[in-house]
Amino acid sequence: MSPKNAFYAQSGGVTSVINASACGVIETCRKHADRIGTVFAGRNGIIGALCEELTDTSQESDADIAALKKTPSGAFGSCRFKLKSLEENKREYQRLIEVFKAHDIGYFFYNGGGDSADTCFKVSQLSEKMGYPVQALHIPKTVDNDLPITDNCPGFGSVAKYIAVSALEASFDVNSMAKTSTKVFILEVMGRHAGWIAAAGGLIEDYGVPVLILFPEVDFDHDRFIAAVKQKVENHGYCTVVVSEGAHHADGSFLAEQGAQDSFGHAQLGGVAPVVAGMIKQALGYKCHWAVADYLQRAARHLASATDVEQAYALGKAAVEMALAGKNAIMPTVERISDNPYRWKVGSANLVDVANVEKMMPPDFISANGFGITDKCRQYLYPLIQGEAYPEYDERGMPRYVVLKNELVSKKLVEFEL
Amino acid sequence: MSPKNAFYAQSGGVTSVINASACGVIETCRKHADRIGTVFAGRNGIIGALCEELTDTSQESDADIAALKKTPSGAFGSCRFKLKSLEENKREYQRLIEVFKAHDIGYFFYNGGGDSADTCFKVSQLSEKMGYPVQALHIPKTVDNDLPITDNCPGFGSVAKYIAVSALEASFDVNSMAKTSTKVFILEVMGRHAGWIAAAGGLIEDYGVPVLILFPEVDFDHDRFIAAVKQKVENHGYCTVVVSEGAHHADGSFLAEQGAQDSFGHAQLGGVAPVVAGMIKQALGYKCHWAVADYLQRAARHLASATDVEQAYALGKAAVEMALAGKNAIMPTVERISDNPYRWKVGSANLVDVANVEKMMPPDFISANGFGITDKCRQYLYPLIQGEAYPEYDERGMPRYVVLKNELVSKKLVEFEL
Repeated sequence: MSPKNAFYAQSGGVTSVINASACGVIETCRKHADRIGTVFAGRNGIIGALCEELTDTSQESDADIAALKKTPSGAFGSCRFKLKSLEENKREYQRLIEVFKAHDIGYFFYNGGGDSADTCFKVSQLSEKMGYPVQALHIPKTVDNDLPITDNCPGFGSVAKYIAVSALEASFDVNSMAKTSTKVFILEVMGRHAGWIAAAGGLIEDYGVPVLILFPEVDFDHDRFIAAVKQKVENHGYCTVVVSEGAHHADGSFLAEQGAQDSFGHAQLGGVAPVVAGMIKQALGYKCHWAVADYLQRAARHLASATDVEQAYALGKAAVEMALAGKNAIMPTVERISDNPYRWKVGSANLVDVANVEKMMPPDFISANGFGITDKCRQYLYPLIQGEAYPEYDERGMPRYVVLKNELVSKKLVEFEL
Repeated sequence: MSPKNAFYAQSGGVTSVINASACGVIETCRKHADRIGTVFAGRNGIIGALCEELTDTSQESDADIAALKKTPSGAFGSCRFKLKSLEENKREYQRLIEVFKAHDIGYFFYNGGGDSADTCFKVSQLSEKMGYPVQALHIPKTVDNDLPITDNCPGFGSVAKYIAVSALEASFDVNSMAKTSTKVFILEVMGRHAGWIAAAGGLIEDYGVPVLILFPEVDFDHDRFIAAVKQKVENHGYCTVVVSEGAHHADGSFLAEQGAQDSFGHAQLGGVAPVVAGMIKQALGYKCHWAVADYLQRAARHLASATDVEQAYALGKAAVEMALAGKNAIMPTVERISDNPYRWKVGSANLVDVANVEKMMPPDFISANGFGITDKCRQYLYPLIQGEAYPEYDERGMPRYVVLKNELVSKKLVEFEL
């Protein structure tokens, strides 16, 4: 009997290292060709499975698969699509089974965040609930760092490094100019619910920069904030503000949503940084500059954390090894052994404990005044940004990021309407 | 007779490599200690000279001066301050001479853009017009790349590399997600008058990315732009837009100035990227993401171009050598010898030909439809982003950027009111 094939898909917002996990999955499967057949990748995540749009990764060279480790984004395409429960939408699960059967798929590797862990958990139940034998393993991935049990999530360390380094560089810039020009620099970062990414901006205080963080965990207080900015500028000549996109007022309304409109009365698309800049300008008259990093932060493979790349790869590899060991409904995790020197190992979590649980920043990671981070937070963060893992560059000066052939397997089934 | 001392100052918006020029100046002066005495640096640029706030760079170790080559921003502080003409404000020139006399300064090295070249030229005339013997040399620096005669300006190559790489990475991200989420990514870049930086975003077309550039050189036409976005998205599934902060309508009004207001009716601080995102969303319904790079782009020493760092250092060094050769009112330049392989040498320009002249993008660098760059432009740009010149990182994962002691020399004169 030939070995069962595998299905791998990327889900949710992509990161600069999710392809390193894909690399770990595919390279490890290739090493176990006696037990795992072809690795099919879903085009655009789980949608690829439902629509039977399967990439045949065996058509990709070893060199191209290895290059995934150094390429940001989702090489197979990702999606935001959450399967409903088996009871609510049995049709989709039925379809998954048909596709799995048609392509002899016995392993399901799903690479994503909290919603994806939920989807993966549902797929892991197919064997028990619908009699189709499949092992479903989840590989954690999220810049938001909000999955439970695992010490951290692949994707986060690189964003943290990018934000810490970028905020430091821009702060040096502002400091140079503050005498006659800009006095406050505001950097908007991702993290609608949890302030993990914003916290990384707090590390620059260790490098002499006066910095204030606006966390989504702390209700925004206009007067306290303005007073804090004033004090920093008076003491240091300048100030850097790192604001989470999820910063909000006590009533829960986002700062970014304070009704900005263009001259035609159309609502403007968000951006909390300009709102904060406007507040400071109005209250204190300081010249401000602001940046919104948006996708730049989660795509910045050029400044990835070596720790992050290593862990992303290791968890992809571990998922395959766990599958080979007969596991189902499991997610490999990062278990921290020590902070300094940083040591970690691969652990595992049951998906039932991971799905739909959001890990917030511990309250003792945020300083008493609400605008900074604690030593405990520093101890947690630094190991995750350790080391550089540069991509290669071509002779023109651009990074060598791989674009896969992504050849689709011939369809065997009728069309499926999403 | 002991050798004359030197004065060095940084001017205007800082860059990720202006300190490399400072390094070139100071290291070269140290090699010629028999002919140049102490190098004083102006705290906050020319203001430091007027206010007699002079940093004694001889107090800095060789290692710290060498570290300037890998540290972004202006290590001595910069300013936006333009000297008026000798006729309009003789008082300031009189003061400069007093400070120069008091500290035995015979060499004036000024590191900046177009306005600074003008200031430097005025100082170069002090000998002739006011009888004080000083040699004034200008070292070019501007991310805007708009100085004449020199093939390019130190500072630009690194921004160009940052924008090209960042736009490529974010485009890979959007491409991953476009099936179910974001279809257009908009990146706002610097360049109020000239589209050099925006042009660098056009390089990603060579890497398979559908990209549209909004140049300040091309009047914005809403309907043509929307049609172009629609076509790119229909053909490729997604599209990246790189927009210059200076993009404007035919009547000259900036896109960023279209009167965005917050809910209290206060004008919002600019940002053309959200305006463009709003237009696309409204006209085509596509989900957009946008980023404003702002200071991140010009401070990003972590992704500097090796060519740029080398040239920034070389022109600082050349300025000192030209001074030693008896030159005055000169700016060392980059002279391109060949594109491929890229070869260049140090040339020189007379400051009278540099001051207050703005070099625009040649029309034949912009594609016929106005949204892209030509092969001629590519040939010009690629050499400038060649090579990587990474900073060192500490054991925690942060770059080792130097902060100088910046000890001020004791004042010998009365206070001066700016």
